[in-house]
Amino acid sequence: MAKVQPRTLSGFMELLPARQIQFDRMTSIIRESFSLYAFTPLDTPIIEASEVLLAKGGGETEKQIYRFSKGDSDLSLRFDLTVPLAKYVALNYAKLAFPFRRFQVGKVYRGERAQRGRFREFYQADIDVIGDGQLDISNDAEIPAIIYRTFTSLGLKRFQIRVNNRKILNGFYSMLGLTAQSGAIMRTVDKLEKIGEKSVRELLTAPDIGLSNDQAAEILRFIDIKGCNADILAALEGYRGRDPKFDEGLDELAAVARNLAAFGVPETHFVLDLTIARGLDYYTGTVYETTMLDHPEIGSICSGGRFDNLAEYYTDKQLPGVGISIGLTRLFFVLEDQGYLNDALNTAPADVLILPMTDDMGPAITLSTQLRSAGVRTQIYGEQKKFKQKMNYADKLGVPYVIFLGDDEIKQDKVSLKNMRSGEQGLLPTGEAVEKIVAAMGADDAATPILDKGE
Amino acid sequence: MAKVQPRTLSGFMELLPARQIQFDRMTSIIRESFSLYAFTPLDTPIIEASEVLLAKGGGETEKQIYRFSKGDSDLSLRFDLTVPLAKYVALNYAKLAFPFRRFQVGKVYRGERAQRGRFREFYQADIDVIGDGQLDISNDAEIPAIIYRTFTSLGLKRFQIRVNNRKILNGFYSMLGLTAQSGAIMRTVDKLEKIGEKSVRELLTAPDIGLSNDQAAEILRFIDIKGCNADILAALEGYRGRDPKFDEGLDELAAVARNLAAFGVPETHFVLDLTIARGLDYYTGTVYETTMLDHPEIGSICSGGRFDNLAEYYTDKQLPGVGISIGLTRLFFVLEDQGYLNDALNTAPADVLILPMTDDMGPAITLSTQLRSAGVRTQIYGEQKKFKQKMNYADKLGVPYVIFLGDDEIKQDKVSLKNMRSGEQGLLPTGEAVEKIVAAMGADDAATPILDKGE
Repeated sequence: MAKVQPRTLSGFMELLPARQIQFDRMTSIIRESFSLYAFTPLDTPIIEASEVLLAKGGGETEKQIYRFSKGDSDLSLRFDLTVPLAKYVALNYAKLAFPFRRFQVGKVYRGERAQRGRFREFYQADIDVIGDGQLDISNDAEIPAIIYRTFTSLGLKRFQIRVNNRKILNGFYSMLGLTAQSGAIMRTVDKLEKIGEKSVRELLTAPDIGLSNDQAAEILRFIDIKGCNADILAALEGYRGRDPKFDEGLDELAAVARNLAAFGVPETHFVLDLTIARGLDYYTGTVYETTMLDHPEIGSICSGGRFDNLAEYYTDKQLPGVGISIGLTRLFFVLEDQGYLNDALNTAPADVLILPMTDDMGPAITLSTQLRSAGVRTQIYGEQKKFKQKMNYADKLGVPYVIFLGDDEIKQDKVSLKNMRSGEQGLLPTGEAVEKIVAAMGADDAATPILDKGE
Repeated sequence: MAKVQPRTLSGFMELLPARQIQFDRMTSIIRESFSLYAFTPLDTPIIEASEVLLAKGGGETEKQIYRFSKGDSDLSLRFDLTVPLAKYVALNYAKLAFPFRRFQVGKVYRGERAQRGRFREFYQADIDVIGDGQLDISNDAEIPAIIYRTFTSLGLKRFQIRVNNRKILNGFYSMLGLTAQSGAIMRTVDKLEKIGEKSVRELLTAPDIGLSNDQAAEILRFIDIKGCNADILAALEGYRGRDPKFDEGLDELAAVARNLAAFGVPETHFVLDLTIARGLDYYTGTVYETTMLDHPEIGSICSGGRFDNLAEYYTDKQLPGVGISIGLTRLFFVLEDQGYLNDALNTAPADVLILPMTDDMGPAITLSTQLRSAGVRTQIYGEQKKFKQKMNYADKLGVPYVIFLGDDEIKQDKVSLKNMRSGEQGLLPTGEAVEKIVAAMGADDAATPILDKGE
């Protein structure tokens, strides 16, 4: 028969078993962390009516969309989890309790040009809190705690949550009479880390934006306000009273910074950073980025912010919100690439492999049932192979324990247990062997998927 | 602004929050059960090259496929999890250890005509064991144990796993000299429950298949062999020696039935059933169906079987396997429809809602951090609303506990804890309140998503 060459599309991450287990461990820690903050899981369809998904229309995103027809329907694959949330909230408004807190971990699709580290199918892990009419700033204040707990639970140590408020920036530009240009200025200032101060200054004074040298200098001076959080807030207080929007933003930023200790976030992992603007017009207040201290070149691994109106394309209801998103597939790719994945993690599908040494599989099966009832992931090796091939299989799986069960063992109600890591082997009463494996599993479970060697 | 009507496509299940939590609970129990049997999780892309996905070609399925172009690529959405597995195994053959045991829970797409209980996007939960060259019958014997543990863990009680072997059927038809017609005969006999014996007899003797009345009677007599498993095996022994394929199938079926008790499967939940053929030419040996005793009209809720060659369209390697599939979205729909979902399950996003009664949110935040560290899903209600509105919110969420934290409580290092189910309220030391909530969570966690009132 003529064969079709098996292949996976480029830009689509498909992992080998051990890596998949690491990825899944990351996902389940993230889900658990989001759940601790009382976000409810949603799972919206991957396909939506194009009319609904593209209600906002235009922009770079639209070109990347997977859009197609089926029968009379014009369909598209979701390109983020925010638009489906907007649809969901508008559609189910009367049935939801507000503030509505939801998380979603799911695949999204963007037909970008394929290149290393860019994916066309990738997971996003999003949380959002949506208010009905209004939403208290305390919701913004909680977000850094969620980011901190999530990444710490994954095993990451050297990261920083960087926070700003768009109202401070907008208010500042309003003070200078530069409101009309503020969008362009912020998008330019946002590139500071990437292209450097000199290039930003050139862009600001170029005809497109057209600032004077003094104006550009003032903006760069403002953006350069640095120090500990208290210093920055103090410096910002110096501008108070000149613009109501600015003052509002300053109050909000102070509120977000106020209860860090109570939220369990150490000062080392939280910085106020006036350079953060997020290049999206969508955000209107608090904005967040998260960077790995040893890999700033990766950019933000968790970003988001406050927005005024989630679902304006679908409903007249005013639905403000605040949320963040982790680009999970790209994060995993980067972590692997940079050597952050914890190789000590047990990535075998089984905690123990039973090798029956008798023709009658009964005793091995009974043992497997006992082990599974104790929560031990158990596999019986039932193939008719030579002993050496069986041990090769155990090695290739990376299974931490092997049990040999022969006539001698069965007669004594014991098992031969081999620790595949240490090579240690012994004859043990069955119950003791189960306990030993369960104890080792506990240690494995405590291992984080990320191993951050920094302090 | 002109609004777009928010809507979700028909045939796409999108759940409200409480139902989503029930669905997710089901999914995670299934994943856990599959993991206990040492299946490794895979997550293949939803989009594949059409050439790869449709390598087999033809058939009813192809018409239902979501197929489209993006740039120069001819793409399709997966319509099952088996074809992507075949591709994966062929592609990664050298890197995998065989037998390769994988599970996948994921969405698949079929553009069927939308009707009640039929979905265009739906979850399948699949396990498969793939051998390299050969695969021992002990793998087939383990499958009923996995089905039994999975559905029992979900809370289902009154179900039966029905097992047969295609070789017995094929061998039987060979004895009668009806091999050429055996496919058509089996597809007809497969309809026995749906259309009744009389109609089956008519179809068998109609010109299309063209059996004599005697032949039809003999087939129906064979298919009607009933009784306990030992009786059926004994009856089948009566045919031994007349066809080698039959004898092989009988040995296999006996092997599958032999170790049920050791596998922990009660006789009540396992039946040998010669009417099961699965209407797919794909299966070559053991076949499985699972039916709800009180709802036979629903059909099989978990089916599968043994196949000879997983990936013949991609590789010359002979890769036999055995597997089963649960149509999770349809199962959930049916369970809800038939009143099987356990309403006692805690489907609130939070285990406790904290209502701060002071302007300073610090103490409430500190308490929330303490609760979360104890694994309690905690929400602080930070909105500026009237007390009554706050309590309405707690009611609408269905949260089991509310904590009131005012000046009095803070001074005494206590909290006011209200059990929202019983209405009971009391002032408690913080640690005691945490313990009380954790204990209640333990009881909630033990609740199964399905409540089967049958015995």
